[in-house]
Amino acid sequence: MLPPEIQHAPGVRLDHVGVAVRSLEEAVAFYRDILGFAPRPPETADGATIIAMAAGGVDLELLSSADPGSPIGKYVARHGPGIHHLCFRVPDLDLALRRCRDAGYRLINEAPRPGADGRRVAFLHPKATAGILIELSD
Amino acid sequence: MLPPEIQHAPGVRLDHVGVAVRSLEEAVAFYRDILGFAPRPPETADGATIIAMAAGGVDLELLSSADPGSPIGKYVARHGPGIHHLCFRVPDLDLALRRCRDAGYRLINEAPRPGADGRRVAFLHPKATAGILIELSD
Repeated sequence: MLPPEIQHAPGVRLDHVGVAVRSLEEAVAFYRDILGFAPRPPETADGATIIAMAAGGVDLELLSSADPGSPIGKYVARHGPGIHHLCFRVPDLDLALRRCRDAGYRLINEAPRPGADGRRVAFLHPKATAGILIELSD
Repeated sequence: MLPPEIQHAPGVRLDHVGVAVRSLEEAVAFYRDILGFAPRPPETADGATIIAMAAGGVDLELLSSADPGSPIGKYVARHGPGIHHLCFRVPDLDLALRRCRDAGYRLINEAPRPGADGRRVAFLHPKATAGILIELSD
């Protein structure tokens, strides 16, 4: 039985899939030339260069970093390239984080921090969620 | 410059994200009770039990297998739980596979095989796509 406030929570949805790559050029060539996606111009965040593309209802984000101390640089050095995180938009970020804490899920960000597009984000620890780094956003 | 036939390819989009988990019960508890998703009844395919849920424009599929010889069983034994694959729907699966072969991308399925819902699917090798197992579907 769900708590009443999320019985019919509207709008929880996958926002984007973040993919860590070594070479943006090679990765873009695959998603653009083979699959037919239309990559947008590069952006930067958290020391990474990001090339995003609309993939239906969600975005695919290719992330690369030349800085070995950045989150993406560390990830690729440790795990190699691969799917880095899933970002879910939730109707009420503060409520979702409180519910995580109450249920004992480990958080990377105890409080929301500024993300892209003026939205607030917070990351959950992958140990809490079956090995998946999850970003929540409002 | 894109080949003319994919200049304006409509409809290429992410269909679902497949997440390999050890415990469906624990994973469902997180996505249902914390994030507010509505899981559908379990299905089975390729020796795995699948619980899918609509996540906006795409599905999230939780995959678990008690059979250590199944694809998901082998994956979890080798890598632990985590994001297992991305499935993209393409407008023309045969064309996409031909383009992969022509460009030297390694395929797991040289020809499409039957997938869920009467659709045809083919997997690309993760070595070809920066460590990501990609399923293409028509």
